[in-house]
Amino acid sequence: MAEHTVKAFDEDITRLRGLIAEMGGLAETALQDALEAMARGDETLAEKVIAGDKKIDALESEVDKLAVRIIALRAPMADDLREVIAALKIAGVVERIGDYSKNIARRIGQIEDRKRFEPLTLLPAMGELAGEMVHDVLTAYAARDPDLALEVIEADNKVDAFFDSIFRNLVSHMMENPATISSAAQLLFVARNIERIGDHATNVAEMVHFAATGVYPPDHDD
Amino acid sequence: MAEHTVKAFDEDITRLRGLIAEMGGLAETALQDALEAMARGDETLAEKVIAGDKKIDALESEVDKLAVRIIALRAPMADDLREVIAALKIAGVVERIGDYSKNIARRIGQIEDRKRFEPLTLLPAMGELAGEMVHDVLTAYAARDPDLALEVIEADNKVDAFFDSIFRNLVSHMMENPATISSAAQLLFVARNIERIGDHATNVAEMVHFAATGVYPPDHDD
Repeated sequence: MAEHTVKAFDEDITRLRGLIAEMGGLAETALQDALEAMARGDETLAEKVIAGDKKIDALESEVDKLAVRIIALRAPMADDLREVIAALKIAGVVERIGDYSKNIARRIGQIEDRKRFEPLTLLPAMGELAGEMVHDVLTAYAARDPDLALEVIEADNKVDAFFDSIFRNLVSHMMENPATISSAAQLLFVARNIERIGDHATNVAEMVHFAATGVYPPDHDD
Repeated sequence: MAEHTVKAFDEDITRLRGLIAEMGGLAETALQDALEAMARGDETLAEKVIAGDKKIDALESEVDKLAVRIIALRAPMADDLREVIAALKIAGVVERIGDYSKNIARRIGQIEDRKRFEPLTLLPAMGELAGEMVHDVLTAYAARDPDLALEVIEADNKVDAFFDSIFRNLVSHMMENPATISSAAQLLFVARNIERIGDHATNVAEMVHFAATGVYPPDHDD
């Protein structure tokens, strides 16, 4: 590439990374807010999470447009092209992470008698772990850090273990207190949404590893 | 676009769709083979699934390259561009669906005494349902059929219900037969992998709906 093209390309890539970072930040906040709203039964905060998802969707479109512009105008090669492709795919996955937080927020009005559920103390911890995965994978993307991406992939096992423990807890709870089955089922969906956030962060981590090194990481067990 | 460019673009898009269809076909077969290998304890078939995943990965790279070429050379607009972007993102998700089947195949050697597990009769049915979702979502993509994409999104609820039932069954099994906990845990991972295949097919369905209509479908509950 000619020097001015290199400079223009670098500026474009910096903007692309900025958009992904912004999307990721919003997805992280959405998850935190959704879990806080659930812990407090705060439906106003839940509404905020639901409304805020539109901004994440809009950012995905912006990433798509900019990535296309970069490919069409700058004709990047090798590493640079890999990074642009990764950005497109990562945006698609982060958008979906936002959806899960919105799904959690939607269930808040349907959980009654929240003090009776032990998982309500486990869910925030599980959510925090998944939130850290989202945070770390975006840091790994920004820093092109394949080792941090591998750590995110490892962390998914912990989120899965939380899910198993919460699931078992809720199932025994339902058996012992049939009257609470409907609320317990809502919490089950919340746990599953958090588990899927972890899974999607893992998916992003694979793409970050690929963008940084040109190879996908060895498969983890999940 | 000039007429010859339109023709060249149509040929490129047809090839792109062909590659996605091929990836999807391989991912579907991988899932069927992994489940059959599990049902029969057939480690040779499991090895075939594991080895075959490389072909899916290679096809993803081909999709990436062709999509980039189309954007750079043909400068597609609006609907056409949306389809190319969707192809890139869908390839990323189908690759991950392939990974889950490989993960299932890897566990087959670790399940002992398979006749004792009732879920071994439920897992193939759950897997078949997830396989149908993968099949249908690729048909929806090929036919640009947003209604079929919505049906796939609906079907995910059934896969989730299977997962819940298998999970509960395995947990009681573990409690009653502590000696089988390790094999039961392997089956739990298999069920989870199938659940995730359903979730990723849903993700593809959203992208298909977007490519066909320009809007993402209303969020489903999951």
